[in-house]
Amino acid sequence: MTKPRTILVLGGARSGKSRHAQALAEAMTPEGCFIATAQAWDDEMRDRIARHQADRDERWTTVEAPLALADAIAEHSRSDRVLLVDCLTLWLTNMLLGEADLAAAGDALVAALEDAPCPVVLVSNEVGFGIVPDNALARRFRDAQGTLNQRLARVCDATDLVVAGLPLRLSGEK
Amino acid sequence: MTKPRTILVLGGARSGKSRHAQALAEAMTPEGCFIATAQAWDDEMRDRIARHQADRDERWTTVEAPLALADAIAEHSRSDRVLLVDCLTLWLTNMLLGEADLAAAGDALVAALEDAPCPVVLVSNEVGFGIVPDNALARRFRDAQGTLNQRLARVCDATDLVVAGLPLRLSGEK
Amino acid sequence: MTKPRTILVLGGARSGKSRHAQALAEAMTPEGCFIATAQAWDDEMRDRIARHQADRDERWTTVEAPLALADAIAEHSRSDRVLLVDCLTLWLTNMLLGEADLAAAGDALVAALEDAPCPVVLVSNEVGFGIVPDNALARRFRDAQGTLNQRLARVCDATDLVVAGLPLRLSGEK
Repeated sequence: MTKPRTILVLGGARSGKSRHAQALAEAMTPEGCFIATAQAWDDEMRDRIARHQADRDERWTTVEAPLALADAIAEHSRSDRVLLVDCLTLWLTNMLLGEADLAAAGDALVAALEDAPCPVVLVSNEVGFGIVPDNALARRFRDAQGTLNQRLARVCDATDLVVAGLPLRLSGEK
Repeated sequence: MTKPRTILVLGGARSGKSRHAQALAEAMTPEGCFIATAQAWDDEMRDRIARHQADRDERWTTVEAPLALADAIAEHSRSDRVLLVDCLTLWLTNMLLGEADLAAAGDALVAALEDAPCPVVLVSNEVGFGIVPDNALARRFRDAQGTLNQRLARVCDATDLVVAGLPLRLSGEK
Repeated sequence: MTKPRTILVLGGARSGKSRHAQALAEAMTPEGCFIATAQAWDDEMRDRIARHQADRDERWTTVEAPLALADAIAEHSRSDRVLLVDCLTLWLTNMLLGEADLAAAGDALVAALEDAPCPVVLVSNEVGFGIVPDNALARRFRDAQGTLNQRLARVCDATDLVVAGLPLRLSGEK
């Protein structure tokens, strides 16, 4: 029974997944690095980013990686501090809208995770429990997100699903 | 190990959450009060309400509280009977369409729950596991529902997630 | 503690539910019969069917049952091999678009399951965890799917929910 080094935190919109991921990360190392994938396109998003930043400890640094996430993980890894990536859904949206090769990006992310010397907590949305979306781009996104979540759950030491702020451990030691 | 006094029952559409909540409530006290938040706007809704009413025991009373839910909980609390609130998603929809202050309404609901001398079972939808909705009102609703569910899960003694009629206890004693 | 003979596998889009169902089925009997409900209307669907077929063992036979599913279960049951039905969501879509009597079709499916002398694994989508869909047909589908999943969960020996490739047993022996 060893503690998980890499944890995937899944949840729906407003499920408390970011807060849970932060609590997990803060329990891992006293200092940490927050890798934000959000881009502040509009006021809704600016509010959300500010709210999440206000929730974090001062000893944390924040870096932005809306697209080059695998590089950011490699660059900001230090064995004595946890990386908290929030979130993969915005990153995947940015990659899809930027017409990136999503399979290759998934490979690079998995490789970066495996190479990182530090604990990593990743936040991602579960988006596949609704009716099939009308438009093809939303369907493509939904498929890509599901595929990415499966890949990450396979390589992470633990995966939690958060519902109404309550975590449910799907795999890995508690 | 004490039995939960307040239970939040979460589930998707047609998940069997109402039936599960009713079974939990009926196991708590022989008589009960059903607090219905539905308003019969159309035939679809009228059918649904009638179907739920036909499922309940005769010893139950029914009151309607499409908006003034905290007041209804205070007014109809009696220590010897359970309150069953079905459901918070319709109530939140009514409040949102009525342009109510949703944060204040959440505060009042939490306070009413904490003050009630009786067991309370609350039914709510989990709506955040799909693709981001196209329209801003739906996004606002989704956010408000997620926030409300988190708040209630924090104060309730137990929370169940119902999938295909099968309850999964997320927190609290069984 | 007896092994489940009938297993319902629920999951969202791209959750790994088909792969999990296949693994369960292959652990039951060495040979099996795959009952496909998909109809190849477009390229997206043709790709998906081909991908699933390539994943299966050669000793498996494949039959197509886009509509007459209960008949196919009766016809292809042999006590020495498992039936894998993938998936009920496409079947229900076909039935709804074909204006079938969905309640009667559910009755026939449940009866076929109970009469089958062999193990059966069924794959179905959980589609009720999003915002209420705008159009009435999607709402009707969502209701029918939820109702069908509840009915099947009640009669199957075990039900799994798959999230990000990770199965969670909701009912039944493991």
